[in-house]
Amino acid sequence: MSDTHNNRQFRLARRPEGLPKRDDFELTRQTLRDAEDGEVRIKVDCISLDPAMRGWMNEGKSYIKPVGIGEVMRAGAAGTVIDSRHADFQPGDAVAGNFGVQTHAVFPADQLRKVDTSLADLPTYLGALGMPGMTAYFGLLDVGALAEGETVLVSAASGAVGALVGQIAKKKGCHVVGIAGGTEKCRYIVEELGFDAAIDYKNEKVGAAIRDHCGQGIDVYFDNVGGEILDAALANLRLNARVVICGAISQYNVAAGMGETMYAPRNYMSLLVNRARMEGFIVFDFTHRYPEAAKQMAQWIASGDLKHREDVVKGFETFPETLLKLFSGENFGKLVLAVDD
Amino acid sequence: MSDTHNNRQFRLARRPEGLPKRDDFELTRQTLRDAEDGEVRIKVDCISLDPAMRGWMNEGKSYIKPVGIGEVMRAGAAGTVIDSRHADFQPGDAVAGNFGVQTHAVFPADQLRKVDTSLADLPTYLGALGMPGMTAYFGLLDVGALAEGETVLVSAASGAVGALVGQIAKKKGCHVVGIAGGTEKCRYIVEELGFDAAIDYKNEKVGAAIRDHCGQGIDVYFDNVGGEILDAALANLRLNARVVICGAISQYNVAAGMGETMYAPRNYMSLLVNRARMEGFIVFDFTHRYPEAAKQMAQWIASGDLKHREDVVKGFETFPETLLKLFSGENFGKLVLAVDD
Repeated sequence: MSDTHNNRQFRLARRPEGLPKRDDFELTRQTLRDAEDGEVRIKVDCISLDPAMRGWMNEGKSYIKPVGIGEVMRAGAAGTVIDSRHADFQPGDAVAGNFGVQTHAVFPADQLRKVDTSLADLPTYLGALGMPGMTAYFGLLDVGALAEGETVLVSAASGAVGALVGQIAKKKGCHVVGIAGGTEKCRYIVEELGFDAAIDYKNEKVGAAIRDHCGQGIDVYFDNVGGEILDAALANLRLNARVVICGAISQYNVAAGMGETMYAPRNYMSLLVNRARMEGFIVFDFTHRYPEAAKQMAQWIASGDLKHREDVVKGFETFPETLLKLFSGENFGKLVLAVDD
Repeated sequence: MSDTHNNRQFRLARRPEGLPKRDDFELTRQTLRDAEDGEVRIKVDCISLDPAMRGWMNEGKSYIKPVGIGEVMRAGAAGTVIDSRHADFQPGDAVAGNFGVQTHAVFPADQLRKVDTSLADLPTYLGALGMPGMTAYFGLLDVGALAEGETVLVSAASGAVGALVGQIAKKKGCHVVGIAGGTEKCRYIVEELGFDAAIDYKNEKVGAAIRDHCGQGIDVYFDNVGGEILDAALANLRLNARVVICGAISQYNVAAGMGETMYAPRNYMSLLVNRARMEGFIVFDFTHRYPEAAKQMAQWIASGDLKHREDVVKGFETFPETLLKLFSGENFGKLVLAVDD
């Protein structure tokens, strides 16, 4: 067996309580089998680390089956074809798919997509041209039903999704305010991404700052964080506002089993006063329309209109600790784990 | 001056904390002036008592200006024209309008609507053919975007709005479950109104009962109450569900100034998991479409397909206590105050 048959994997060892810990995973080694007809064998180059992964570790009914105990942790990833038993793929092709947290994979060819590394590098296909890009595009334009000239507020604004939401809204002629943690992230979204204003939730009163920067109220609030920031946004809606529920990263590690409960939005009756709606979505529902969004996003990237930033951490075996950067607010841009040490 | 110039009025004396008390109002006597050109003088026969009135007593920005201290308490009402200085109205005509909590009124003719007492009596024009009827119709069909054969859950199901919501949903071929307090109200909505099932929130575990009666989950939840019942409904949504926020009567008397806070819906992330939306509305936004709804509702009433029930309490001066029946769950059907003692 060659080196490319030596597969390392992070498997879910138990369901985390609160923040995931190293002991919640098991690092396993496995000799990878060869590809059979219709399959491709892949060397994974980079793995997408996303807030949604925390939800997939929990038991219980959700929009997707939880990762089972003992299963390889679910994750989007990108890599290179080693050998192929399918006519559409050749060794050396760059591909993306849900390969999971492992260094190699044998995968059905019909669940892969080929990516063009002359247009963008692999991490970009996990970010602006991957799930976060699709999430920003459909969440803002379809679920949020954004109209030109509206006032848009987005939380986790320097993050993988938030940074794209704000920039897409600017392309639609909107007044865009982002919420982020810390001076550097706030500077980045205004000076580099072109947001109209930033609110530093670590150093400002968010409610007062929203009133300052969204004078006539919020038309679309794109929520990635939940908690008190969602409540502050609800208190400042404009007539017929749309609150897009994309995530609630501030609440994902609440240890429900330990008697903690999710922060609940007290100001939801603002939906009535303002004839507003709050709507959740799952990007996977838009799969059939990914090509439309990817084409548009790639054009904006090529023209320099859409900036993106990846936070690439090297070292496959750092996975448990690197994942935590999402929840500490430490990462800056799309968090990607590079498999090579 | 005739007797019909002796007007009695309940004016808001101060902003209530928690449940409104008699001392929060002042009973005043006033000699009514005569109608001038374009005006009509009215004897008020019955006054609509609605949960929304509690909100109108609070200070602060809302969908409508608060009632000012010293002003006649705002209310819908119906009555009889005494004399008229407008060609469209004659003495003896039955009319409805926002006359407020008073026994007589001089009112601009263009803010009145004439009603036909050969089709329905005056209290019905405050209920099924009035604001509650319009609220049920547009809230369920437009905001809730009800589709045939869906599962509908409605709270305060024997109330003025809830009873109509359930019956309209039955006419659309839906599976309808109502939540009400007590055996008699539950019997009424099933046996007399034709709901498929009732949940007695005073004697049953609401969450478990919803799971029993809405086997595949809720497509439309029409919320009149807020609080824990809203949370139980959120926990049982079906894919693409709509939660219509019509009111939150369980929360209207929370004394925010006393450190109490509204019950907040912890399960709002069910909106994401189920790609669902929660949307508020104000019936006044549909004013231009009232004729369409009133025509349909009148047809259903005439054919016996839509039953309605008014809880008429006699005695103008009982207003402060009668209003409280809304919040104790004591009233049964549309609450109407009859002016005659």
